[in-house]
Amino acid sequence: MTDFKTAAIFVKRTEPMGEALQLLLSILEKEGVQALLEESTAKHIPGAVGYDLNTLGQKADLIIIIGGDGTTLGIARRMACYHLPMIAINAGRLGFITDFSLKDMHKTLPPLLHGEYSADTRGMLEAKVLRRGKCVFTATAVNDAGITHGRAGSMVEFNVSVDGSPMATQRADGVIVATATGSTAYALAAGGPILHPSLNAMVLVPVAPHTLTNRPIVLPGNCTVEISLIAAKEAAVYCDMQDFFSMQIDDVLRITSIPKSFVLLHPLNHNHYKTLQQKLYWNSMPSAGAEEKQ
Amino acid sequence: MTDFKTAAIFVKRTEPMGEALQLLLSILEKEGVQALLEESTAKHIPGAVGYDLNTLGQKADLIIIIGGDGTTLGIARRMACYHLPMIAINAGRLGFITDFSLKDMHKTLPPLLHGEYSADTRGMLEAKVLRRGKCVFTATAVNDAGITHGRAGSMVEFNVSVDGSPMATQRADGVIVATATGSTAYALAAGGPILHPSLNAMVLVPVAPHTLTNRPIVLPGNCTVEISLIAAKEAAVYCDMQDFFSMQIDDVLRITSIPKSFVLLHPLNHNHYKTLQQKLYWNSMPSAGAEEKQ
Amino acid sequence: MTDFKTAAIFVKRTEPMGEALQLLLSILEKEGVQALLEESTAKHIPGAVGYDLNTLGQKADLIIIIGGDGTTLGIARRMACYHLPMIAINAGRLGFITDFSLKDMHKTLPPLLHGEYSADTRGMLEAKVLRRGKCVFTATAVNDAGITHGRAGSMVEFNVSVDGSPMATQRADGVIVATATGSTAYALAAGGPILHPSLNAMVLVPVAPHTLTNRPIVLPGNCTVEISLIAAKEAAVYCDMQDFFSMQIDDVLRITSIPKSFVLLHPLNHNHYKTLQQKLYWNSMPSAGAEEKQ
Amino acid sequence: MTDFKTAAIFVKRTEPMGEALQLLLSILEKEGVQALLEESTAKHIPGAVGYDLNTLGQKADLIIIIGGDGTTLGIARRMACYHLPMIAINAGRLGFITDFSLKDMHKTLPPLLHGEYSADTRGMLEAKVLRRGKCVFTATAVNDAGITHGRAGSMVEFNVSVDGSPMATQRADGVIVATATGSTAYALAAGGPILHPSLNAMVLVPVAPHTLTNRPIVLPGNCTVEISLIAAKEAAVYCDMQDFFSMQIDDVLRITSIPKSFVLLHPLNHNHYKTLQQKLYWNSMPSAGAEEKQ
Repeated sequence: MTDFKTAAIFVKRTEPMGEALQLLLSILEKEGVQALLEESTAKHIPGAVGYDLNTLGQKADLIIIIGGDGTTLGIARRMACYHLPMIAINAGRLGFITDFSLKDMHKTLPPLLHGEYSADTRGMLEAKVLRRGKCVFTATAVNDAGITHGRAGSMVEFNVSVDGSPMATQRADGVIVATATGSTAYALAAGGPILHPSLNAMVLVPVAPHTLTNRPIVLPGNCTVEISLIAAKEAAVYCDMQDFFSMQIDDVLRITSIPKSFVLLHPLNHNHYKTLQQKLYWNSMPSAGAEEKQ
Repeated sequence: MTDFKTAAIFVKRTEPMGEALQLLLSILEKEGVQALLEESTAKHIPGAVGYDLNTLGQKADLIIIIGGDGTTLGIARRMACYHLPMIAINAGRLGFITDFSLKDMHKTLPPLLHGEYSADTRGMLEAKVLRRGKCVFTATAVNDAGITHGRAGSMVEFNVSVDGSPMATQRADGVIVATATGSTAYALAAGGPILHPSLNAMVLVPVAPHTLTNRPIVLPGNCTVEISLIAAKEAAVYCDMQDFFSMQIDDVLRITSIPKSFVLLHPLNHNHYKTLQQKLYWNSMPSAGAEEKQ
Repeated sequence: MTDFKTAAIFVKRTEPMGEALQLLLSILEKEGVQALLEESTAKHIPGAVGYDLNTLGQKADLIIIIGGDGTTLGIARRMACYHLPMIAINAGRLGFITDFSLKDMHKTLPPLLHGEYSADTRGMLEAKVLRRGKCVFTATAVNDAGITHGRAGSMVEFNVSVDGSPMATQRADGVIVATATGSTAYALAAGGPILHPSLNAMVLVPVAPHTLTNRPIVLPGNCTVEISLIAAKEAAVYCDMQDFFSMQIDDVLRITSIPKSFVLLHPLNHNHYKTLQQKLYWNSMPSAGAEEKQ
Repeated sequence: MTDFKTAAIFVKRTEPMGEALQLLLSILEKEGVQALLEESTAKHIPGAVGYDLNTLGQKADLIIIIGGDGTTLGIARRMACYHLPMIAINAGRLGFITDFSLKDMHKTLPPLLHGEYSADTRGMLEAKVLRRGKCVFTATAVNDAGITHGRAGSMVEFNVSVDGSPMATQRADGVIVATATGSTAYALAAGGPILHPSLNAMVLVPVAPHTLTNRPIVLPGNCTVEISLIAAKEAAVYCDMQDFFSMQIDDVLRITSIPKSFVLLHPLNHNHYKTLQQKLYWNSMPSAGAEEKQ
C-alpha cells in the first residue's frame, strides 16, 4: 500500500500532454492511488472530469505535477494553503525543481508513492503594499517579490529598511527580494548568489544599481523588509513576475517570509548540486586559457 | 584676443542660477567674447534676450554650459549638428564630463578662451527603428541607446546581429549600447566596462541577462548593431533615457556610431582618470580585511 | 557599579598609542573596572605590567580593544576559547566592526560598561587539512578560510562537496569560504554577497572561476564543506590571510562553522547598515546618467 | 595550384597524434604543399625529420597547427617574428581560435590552401619590467600580461598609469592586461568584457579588487600601460601564464600592444560569434523563472 491515497493532478496546459497524462494515470491506478484531475488538466483527455482547486485541496493528500519549474511554482503558490506535498515531473528540459523526467516516470514515481523520498521543504514570501498605512495589495511569491520600473525610464529610487532599521537608499532599475528557491531564477540573472534550499534566508538584489557598491545582501528569514518608493516615473510591485500592482510614490512594499510553505518530494538519490551542475553547465565551460597547458 | 568671438550660453533651468550666469557674463565681457543666451537660460536674468537653438548654432563659435553631466549631454545632443566646441562648468557636484566648478570659473575659464585647452572629441550614436523595412523612429544618443521592458514583466527577448552576422539571442531585462561617454553611466550600473574616451568603440551590455555567460561585448565604432525584438509583453527603445519609442515584435533597432560628434574643451591639466578616481571613490574604499595587517 | 569587573586591554602595536591608552585607563579607573594590559600593549606605557593571553583569559570578564578591524579580528581569533565579550574602539578610520571612535570613547564607553549595549554574536570557522585521512593542519578564522594559488601560475583545480555530497569541480584562482563577518572583506572583493551578521551561514566564493556560472553559494552554518585539491602548480590553505599551509594534491580542506564564537558589544544606537553605508559609500556614488534629469 | 608552397607543421605533444598527422600530411601532399615538421612534432612519426623554429620560420610560408587554443597561442607567440599566416585545427573540443576540427580537415583544409579563407589579424602584447629604469625582463603575450600574487597572501598593491597619466592605485589579488584574443580567457574569468577581435584595444582587469568600483577599463591599442608595484609579500609578472618573473617593490611593468602580430586563416563561413555562442553556451542556459510562462 502507498503512503498516499488521493493525488491531485496538474499538467501543463500549453502543449498536448494527453499521452503523458494517460501514462501517469495508469501508474497511479496500478499503485492504488486515486487521481483527481484539475479542471484545465482534464481537458487533455476527452470526457475526463475536472475538479476546482478547493475540492482538490480538500480531498487530496498529494499533488503531482507534469510541467516545468514555472508550472510547478505557480501551483505551489496557489495550493500553499492546503499544505500538500508535491511531486514535480519535468515535461521537457530539466528544471531546478522538477528533477526527474517523464520518460523515467514509470520507474521513479512508484517508490516515491511508497514513502521512499527525501522531503525538501521550501519557504515562500508574503508581499503587501501599504498606502498611507493601509494595505492595498497582498500576494505571495515562491521565487521573488520586488519593484520593477515602467516603460518610460529605467530608474526607481527607494529606501530599504530591515526590521525597522534604515538600510539604504538606492537608485536602480528595480529591486528583487528572493527566496532560496528564487535565488536561481531572476535574482541570479541580476547578480545575486545561490542560496542553499535549506537556508532560512532571503536575498535582496538591486537590479543595475547606480551605486556600484550596492551589493546583494542575504538576510535572515525571520526579518521584515520594507521598501518605500521615493521616485519613479512609473513603478510596479511584482510577485513571481505573475502578479503586478502599480505603485505610487510613498507606497511601502513590505516583505516577510513564510518558512516551510511547501514540500517537494524528491527521489532518494536526489542531489541539489547535481541539478545546479546540469542547469548551470558547471563542469563543461572552461575559458580558452585554461583549456590546455603546453 | 580670444580664440572665440561669440559664445552660446546654456544654464541649467531647474535652479535659480542668475548669480552664476551674471558672473559668467562679466568674465566673457572682460575677455571680449559676445554672449548669446539660450531662450530658457535668459529667464534667469529679468529682461535678458534669449535666442533659439538655430540662431545660436549659426552665430556662435563656442558653447558654454553651466550645469551637470545631464544638462551637458542633452545640449551636446541637440547642438551636435552645428559642430561647436563646448565648455562645461559644473554647477554642483563634480561630473564625469563637467570637470571644473563654478567657484573656479573666474580662474579656469579665461585660459580656455585663449586657446589653452585640451580638446576631447566624443562620438555619439544614431538609433533607428525599422518596421517591416521602413524607418519609423530615429534619434541620437550621447550616452546610450537600447531596449527596456515595460511595467508588466521584466523580460524582453531579442536577437543581436553585428554587421549582418547573427551574434546572440538573449533574454534579459533590456539591452544597452553605450558610447565611451555612456560607459560610465547606465552601462556601468548594468555591469559594463569603462571605455577610454578616445577609443572608437561601443559596448553592448545586457541588463540582468538570463544566460549568465552573456557578458558585455566591446565592438568597433564602425560596426552596425541590429537588435530585433522577438518577444516581450511591452518594450521600448530609448535614447539617453530621454527619448522613448514603443517597440513591436519584429521591429529592428539599428544602431551606428557617429564618431567625432562633439568636442569638449578641458583645462590643460585635465586628467580623465582623476575624474574617474573622484567620481568612483577609487582611492578610498578598502574592505575590512585589507585595511590593516597585524 | 558596572557589569564588568576586569577588562583585558589590547592596543594596536604598530603606532604610538600611549595617550589613547592612558585615556582608556582613566575612564576604566573612574568606572571602577580593573584594567589588565596585554604584554605588547603594556609597552605603550613605560613601566606598565603586561599579562599573557592565558592569564588575561582567566582573570578578565571583558576585552577592550583599541585598533582597527584587523586588530580586533586577530584578537577575537586568539581569545575565542575564553568566551569573553569584546568592545572594539577604532583608532583610525571607521571599520565594519570597530564602530565607535577614540575621540568619542569618554562618552560612548561608560554606558557600555554599565550594561547599556546591544550584543552582536558572531561565528567563526574551523579549518582542517586532511592528508590521506590524517589531520595535518588546523586553524580558526574569523573572516575566511580557503585556498589560494602560488606564484607560478594562477590556477587551482578542486572538488567541493557539502555534507558529503559532491557539489562542483572548479578551476579558479582560488576559493574563499567566508563567515558573515568575512562577507564584507575578501569575499566581497571576489564578488560575494553581504551576509547579515545574525545569519547562521557561510558563503563559498570562487575567485575568478573559469566557469562563468560558478557563482557564490550561501550555505547553512551547520554544514561541512570539503574542498579537495585536484591540480595546482602550488597552492596554500589560508585562514584570515594570516595563517598559511602548503597544500599537496589530494589534500582535503575541511571547513565547519563554530556558531556564537565571540560577542561584540555595541552602543545601543548601533545600526549595522549605517556602517555598511559609510564604509561602502552607499548614499553618495551616483553614475553620470542618474545625476540629473533635464 | 595552392597559394602556399611550404607549411610548417606543429602538433600538440601530449597525446599520440600520429594518425592525425599522417592524414594531414597526405592532404598536403595531394595539394602539392611541402610539409616541414617541427622537432617535437616529428616524434609522432617514427623516423620523421624535424626542423628547428628558425629553419621553419625561414623556409615556410604557412603554419599549420593541430592542437587546442593553448597550443596555437604558444606557437603564435614563438613564431610571431616570422609573420607567417596560421591555420589552427582543433584536436579535441572547439576552441575560441581553433575553429574547425580534425574530422572535417579533409574537407575544410584544401579550400584554405587555395586562398578561400577569411584572414583574422590579431595583436599581441609586449611586456617589460623596469628596475630602477633598466629593463630586467621582456616577453610577449598573445592573451595577457599582468601581475599575480605569491603563495603567502593574496594581495598586491600597485599604481597604474596610462601614457604617463596616473590612473589609479589598486589593491587586488592581481591585475590582467589582455588583448582582444585574451579577453575570452583569464580576463573573462576575472569579470572583464569580451573585446571584438578586430578592435585595436586592450583591457585592464583587476582581479578581486578591494575597491569595488575598480572596474575593467578598455584602453586604446596604442597606449602604454605602466603598473608599478607598491606593496606585496610576493608578486610575479606573467605572460600568458607561461612566463613568470619575480617582481620587487618599485619595479614597473610596462605593457604596449603590437598590433597585427599574427594572422589566422579561417574558412570563409567563419563567424566569430558562432564560436562565442558555442563556447559560452549562449543559447541554452535559461534560469528557472524564464523557462516557462503559465
